[in-house]
Amino acid sequence: MAPVSQDNLTAVLYGINDLRLEQRPIPVPNDDQVLLRMEAVGICGSDVHYLVKGYIGHFVVRQPMIVGHEASGTVVKVGKNVTHLKPGDRVAIEPGVSCRRCSYCKEGRYHLCPGMVFCATPPVHGNLARYYIHDADFCFKLPDHVSFEEGAILEPLSVGVHGCKRAGVKVGSVVLVLGAGPIGLVTLLAAKAFGASKVLITDILQHRLDLAKELGADHVLLVEKDASDESIVKKVHEMLGEEPTISMDCSGAEQSVRVAIQATKSGGCALLIGMGQSEMKLPLANALIREVDIRGVFRYCNDYPTSLDLIATGKINVKRLVTHHYTLEQTLEAFETAKTGVGNPIKVMIHANPDWKP
Amino acid sequence: MAPVSQDNLTAVLYGINDLRLEQRPIPVPNDDQVLLRMEAVGICGSDVHYLVKGYIGHFVVRQPMIVGHEASGTVVKVGKNVTHLKPGDRVAIEPGVSCRRCSYCKEGRYHLCPGMVFCATPPVHGNLARYYIHDADFCFKLPDHVSFEEGAILEPLSVGVHGCKRAGVKVGSVVLVLGAGPIGLVTLLAAKAFGASKVLITDILQHRLDLAKELGADHVLLVEKDASDESIVKKVHEMLGEEPTISMDCSGAEQSVRVAIQATKSGGCALLIGMGQSEMKLPLANALIREVDIRGVFRYCNDYPTSLDLIATGKINVKRLVTHHYTLEQTLEAFETAKTGVGNPIKVMIHANPDWKP
Amino acid sequence: MAPVSQDNLTAVLYGINDLRLEQRPIPVPNDDQVLLRMEAVGICGSDVHYLVKGYIGHFVVRQPMIVGHEASGTVVKVGKNVTHLKPGDRVAIEPGVSCRRCSYCKEGRYHLCPGMVFCATPPVHGNLARYYIHDADFCFKLPDHVSFEEGAILEPLSVGVHGCKRAGVKVGSVVLVLGAGPIGLVTLLAAKAFGASKVLITDILQHRLDLAKELGADHVLLVEKDASDESIVKKVHEMLGEEPTISMDCSGAEQSVRVAIQATKSGGCALLIGMGQSEMKLPLANALIREVDIRGVFRYCNDYPTSLDLIATGKINVKRLVTHHYTLEQTLEAFETAKTGVGNPIKVMIHANPDWKP
Amino acid sequence: MAPVSQDNLTAVLYGINDLRLEQRPIPVPNDDQVLLRMEAVGICGSDVHYLVKGYIGHFVVRQPMIVGHEASGTVVKVGKNVTHLKPGDRVAIEPGVSCRRCSYCKEGRYHLCPGMVFCATPPVHGNLARYYIHDADFCFKLPDHVSFEEGAILEPLSVGVHGCKRAGVKVGSVVLVLGAGPIGLVTLLAAKAFGASKVLITDILQHRLDLAKELGADHVLLVEKDASDESIVKKVHEMLGEEPTISMDCSGAEQSVRVAIQATKSGGCALLIGMGQSEMKLPLANALIREVDIRGVFRYCNDYPTSLDLIATGKINVKRLVTHHYTLEQTLEAFETAKTGVGNPIKVMIHANPDWKP
Repeated sequence: MAPVSQDNLTAVLYGINDLRLEQRPIPVPNDDQVLLRMEAVGICGSDVHYLVKGYIGHFVVRQPMIVGHEASGTVVKVGKNVTHLKPGDRVAIEPGVSCRRCSYCKEGRYHLCPGMVFCATPPVHGNLARYYIHDADFCFKLPDHVSFEEGAILEPLSVGVHGCKRAGVKVGSVVLVLGAGPIGLVTLLAAKAFGASKVLITDILQHRLDLAKELGADHVLLVEKDASDESIVKKVHEMLGEEPTISMDCSGAEQSVRVAIQATKSGGCALLIGMGQSEMKLPLANALIREVDIRGVFRYCNDYPTSLDLIATGKINVKRLVTHHYTLEQTLEAFETAKTGVGNPIKVMIHANPDWKP
Repeated sequence: MAPVSQDNLTAVLYGINDLRLEQRPIPVPNDDQVLLRMEAVGICGSDVHYLVKGYIGHFVVRQPMIVGHEASGTVVKVGKNVTHLKPGDRVAIEPGVSCRRCSYCKEGRYHLCPGMVFCATPPVHGNLARYYIHDADFCFKLPDHVSFEEGAILEPLSVGVHGCKRAGVKVGSVVLVLGAGPIGLVTLLAAKAFGASKVLITDILQHRLDLAKELGADHVLLVEKDASDESIVKKVHEMLGEEPTISMDCSGAEQSVRVAIQATKSGGCALLIGMGQSEMKLPLANALIREVDIRGVFRYCNDYPTSLDLIATGKINVKRLVTHHYTLEQTLEAFETAKTGVGNPIKVMIHANPDWKP
Repeated sequence: MAPVSQDNLTAVLYGINDLRLEQRPIPVPNDDQVLLRMEAVGICGSDVHYLVKGYIGHFVVRQPMIVGHEASGTVVKVGKNVTHLKPGDRVAIEPGVSCRRCSYCKEGRYHLCPGMVFCATPPVHGNLARYYIHDADFCFKLPDHVSFEEGAILEPLSVGVHGCKRAGVKVGSVVLVLGAGPIGLVTLLAAKAFGASKVLITDILQHRLDLAKELGADHVLLVEKDASDESIVKKVHEMLGEEPTISMDCSGAEQSVRVAIQATKSGGCALLIGMGQSEMKLPLANALIREVDIRGVFRYCNDYPTSLDLIATGKINVKRLVTHHYTLEQTLEAFETAKTGVGNPIKVMIHANPDWKP
Repeated sequence: MAPVSQDNLTAVLYGINDLRLEQRPIPVPNDDQVLLRMEAVGICGSDVHYLVKGYIGHFVVRQPMIVGHEASGTVVKVGKNVTHLKPGDRVAIEPGVSCRRCSYCKEGRYHLCPGMVFCATPPVHGNLARYYIHDADFCFKLPDHVSFEEGAILEPLSVGVHGCKRAGVKVGSVVLVLGAGPIGLVTLLAAKAFGASKVLITDILQHRLDLAKELGADHVLLVEKDASDESIVKKVHEMLGEEPTISMDCSGAEQSVRVAIQATKSGGCALLIGMGQSEMKLPLANALIREVDIRGVFRYCNDYPTSLDLIATGKINVKRLVTHHYTLEQTLEAFETAKTGVGNPIKVMIHANPDWKP
């Protein structure tokens, strides 16, 4: 590897609408960590939310925080216990590191670990910088034919993959996806790759549905502003020719959650990925007497290897999702695009490596 | 067996508050059925609801309907295909018969079968009568040491058992049961028998909690009228010394459902057995980000053998639940007791066999 | 539908090497059955085994038996309870009808039903004839774009599908298939469709491996006669670059089963589809201390819908498997081809409809 | 806590039949560890095997190794990261510490971790000594009413508990346990606690069966030396009045494994806990066509909390299993008893605390 440069330009959120680029010291990996030269870093809705609101739920930005958590990089140095990576390896970064010692960690549900340290969730720093250190076992080596951008997209894709696992999407599933934003789209891709026989996706914006169609949606449904639950459920059933066995809400809108419950076939699952308002009025009896399970999705767990496999084997093509590219120096413009939606961005990608060429 | 008498006194619901005892012809079993002399028949909350309201949800009593579905009987005649039963056998009756041919039936979830024919759910007749025919494979032979009353109680117990299976109650589970009515109490019993290490049960009536304590509840919590969600959740956690891994609502009350969600440990399950109002305002984000599954329970499926095993092996003792006894001729009084709650009834039992002695 | 002709030419096995074509009366469906004009009927290894040996295990041909069980047909008449099919519908026939009343049937494992009535398993007749009756719920309607031959191949494909479900093949599985005969090939196809990231298939015949490669095998391994377990396991690991998480034996050979166990990654599954000698010497301690599960596959259960979905959506293409075509009148020649293997047949198909055109 | 004494008498295996007591330095815990004053340490069959043979499978004693791994202790010092334990806490010690970073560890199957460091498995030292250090998260605090001996027995009990989880023992299971040695007996206890409706246990020694009966076995079967598989299977079915849904071999004998397979109900599980010769001749076709799964058990994983719960709640009483007591100074006598079987020992317990009083 080339020697580490001293430039560690870093994107730091100081407060509401106060995102700054500044030099920070290059961190030093411990025995189980690697030092990474950062490559592609995607902007997530949560990054924008922290920028605009300063908090998400209980998580409040109280001190300057480095943003970014959908990322890939190149290994520059490895700690002495690290055996599966070496300098020069290209990796995707799973941004949360769990405690490894609690019962959640030992039972294979480490995403629920109360000691989780997760990039760009206050007060933990993210990785939108030239250099970043991370626990080596949460770095996944990319095959040569998988790009850094694809590596970065493993993060949102893993949410869709985790959702498909939680919902039990399998060969023959009939799936309704509600919401065709970035998470809705990766969920669509994941559901198809998990064997769904048909996927219908809804949104309130036609251009998103057009992209969904392009990405493989079997049916798309433009939901009108004042449509009733009943009319949406009816259309879903008509278009699919049957009831979905699984509905996956990726919008967080109350009506979408209501429709997810009511549209799903008895014995199926209404999966909730999208995070919306904390309280919702729901048709609970409908779910209860038809044994439609309501399950949420929180991040991912053991899903990076699956997501990487889906991309590496060509079962999923996420390239079309990246609509905008910026350099690290252009970070504020990148966030502006993500925030305003001008140009209909799906995934805005920042390239942290100064050698990146468009 | 004694020859079949011609007396087939039968309890027929003609309309709201119009329950009549009348003679009906004794039915004739087909090749796969048995004719049963009815023994113990418990009164369920749904029986009372039909009597008082004339409907439950979409199910409306539009023509005279025989009531009763928590029942046991003695085999009097068997159809020619019936091999596992013979006249004289004492049986518990699983009251729903499914179509056996749809995908739900073939996949082992026959309780969701759209062709289900279920006793005393309009327009299907129940079995509160001297004689009744039923598909033999939904009749379960009782060992000699299991009483007819216990056989009748297999019905509500199977709801609790189904709930424990759906929620995944297992050795070491920490369980919160909300509501100590008949279903709450059988759920408590089932949860303990499934290996729960601790069960806390709540109610708004102290006398129910007293009985719950007697039945094996580790902790009981009297919920006050205007208690906040937070205060109840806090008390639950304090009494248990930890968060319940599973919460089972047996009340149908909105606040109980809200507490079930909020009190449950991350990654656990809020199971909903009690049927309440069709719409509820719920703290959904709380469930979603902690991956607390919300699952409903609809009746039971392959649970009678489990319930019978629990009673036959002495793991569960349900005798204490039967608080009142009536003869078939006293059916109207029995329903009056169940309806008014005078005398704090838990389970009111009607004895359909004229030879029954108190 | 055209009126039913009186020609019911039927292939009847009278004893060892005594297969005859003869006229039989056209059967009459009961209320839950359909009368089918038979279309494509594949020859299975078991059909040939009965022809040559007169028995398989405990099943002995003691009286004349109609052969054939991999079949599709056209509905001619429907019993009065049949609602999901009508005359003219093209269907695939799941050849086993279970009792619907035992605990296996009710719990969703009807293939283990002791009362199973299965085509062409003595003494039950098969369906290689002009006409045949079958329980309607075990007939699956084919979409227009799915051929009768594909309908017939749903039978062996369902064995592979059932195997994949039993073994837990999922996105990212690394699969070893041992044996590239018809069952090995459909298992390969199913494993890929279930999301396997890589499949390596073995055989002792190169031409089968060539076809496997064409069908999508990622790696093929020609096993030499006197290769040791160790050398085969080593090659498997080298070719895959890792240990298979699942190994599926489709050969029934003792060495293949031994290799399946030893090659599989700890915590994985050695699935046994192929039926070989009844006793085998196995490296059991190796399986035990590495928690490699050994699971068998018996036919299929709720797998026809999955198999049909895989074919109808184009996820699996089985057309290449059909290597030989015969008319019903040529049945003896067809069996000769299947028996001798002359012309390297994979699947030999008999067309029972006299109107069939090559 | 009393200050740490300088006496660290330790039992070290130098070679075949060469077990010595000697002083060793007291180890120093790292930040995530605790220093323990050892209390009860049980002798396991593997300890005796290493003493007599010098190896088990690939594990060979090549340099002096401290023995012992069924143990409990009292916390003396805690590393600075340890929060759930404090000096004075009484704990059971799960003797294997996994790497926490491989996919097995992250997926909740840490017992299969290739980096596992396991007490008294060469070349890793065990804990039969006055003092011992261990990772704090693999130490489980004992309630006051659970004794150190019970804490030590959590180790073999966890094997039985893991077996019950792997086999899916649940309410209503009918269980056959083959072999009534220490592991057979704890498996019996665990199976009953997991809800088995009946357990039949076999052995070739009557005195073990007598104890099994005392511990709650519903049926016991003395197997004669030259009994055929068929005769044993027949007796098992007769005594149970049905086929076991689960058979658990705790003997490692080929015939027991053969009986486990053949006796089990179709669709059930033959679980193999006992480790016997590496190769076995098995009736594989019988398992395959009846879909009887063959699953092994390797140690345990996340089972200590379950085992402790079973003992702490009184669901399992293991006290009767401890038949012999020795002080640490009497270690050689203790091993002699375990080795020779004189006095019919079940579990031989060594008390490492010099203050122990019989």
